[in-house]
Amino acid sequence: MTRTHEKVRYLPESKEEGHTPFSAADGVEQVFKLLEGRWKFLILFHLFGGKLRRFSELERAIPAVSQKMLIQQLRQLEGDGIVRRIVHHQVPPKVEYGLTDWGQALCPALDALLKWSALRDDFDADGARPTS
Amino acid sequence: MTRTHEKVRYLPESKEEGHTPFSAADGVEQVFKLLEGRWKFLILFHLFGGKLRRFSELERAIPAVSQKMLIQQLRQLEGDGIVRRIVHHQVPPKVEYGLTDWGQALCPALDALLKWSALRDDFDADGARPTS
Repeated sequence: MTRTHEKVRYLPESKEEGHTPFSAADGVEQVFKLLEGRWKFLILFHLFGGKLRRFSELERAIPAVSQKMLIQQLRQLEGDGIVRRIVHHQVPPKVEYGLTDWGQALCPALDALLKWSALRDDFDADGARPTS
Repeated sequence: MTRTHEKVRYLPESKEEGHTPFSAADGVEQVFKLLEGRWKFLILFHLFGGKLRRFSELERAIPAVSQKMLIQQLRQLEGDGIVRRIVHHQVPPKVEYGLTDWGQALCPALDALLKWSALRDDFDADGARPTS
């Protein structure tokens, strides 16, 4: 059943251990669950590149989100180790949000998804590479 | 506000046009919507690497999915141009499922998400790279 030319492409390079289809699907699903919700992506794309933003700046940058929802999303991202909250001890206190190192490392993966999505136009309606 | 050393990392290389945080977040969200649902990932990871599987093989490989749900997920993936259905005109007819070229191209992007997820252990609880 298994042919030797079939590359196991879902083997993450960073781990020695292999993935089964089940563990790979489970791993990707966990990432999806961690990130789902439109505001999280917007927050991420506003912070990628080492940017630091005050709460009021994020509020202005994402006018459609309510204050309550923005607080909730930032807290979840902070709790998950993706966003960090930086408190500058000054008068009045200044609080900024940025990405953690791990959060910043998500950028290439989201890039890869965007590139895949953009590739759609290079294929025909059936998802096949045009032969012409 | 914008500093020149901030790389616009969410600019897909495959497109000349740039992304705003809004278009990037929207693009990633569309990919998430296209793929959400545990069975889709499992189907994908069973088909990556150019594998072809009959319906009955997928049923056996994913015992937890109902026949109705498996049909529905395959139809959605087929309709979205990710999975292709190959009908061999023989007696009795043989039908196999595989990935389209575009579907196969998703593999590196899901790999990148898995790699990012696996990176979590390399950072401390706050998502920062340990300095020790």
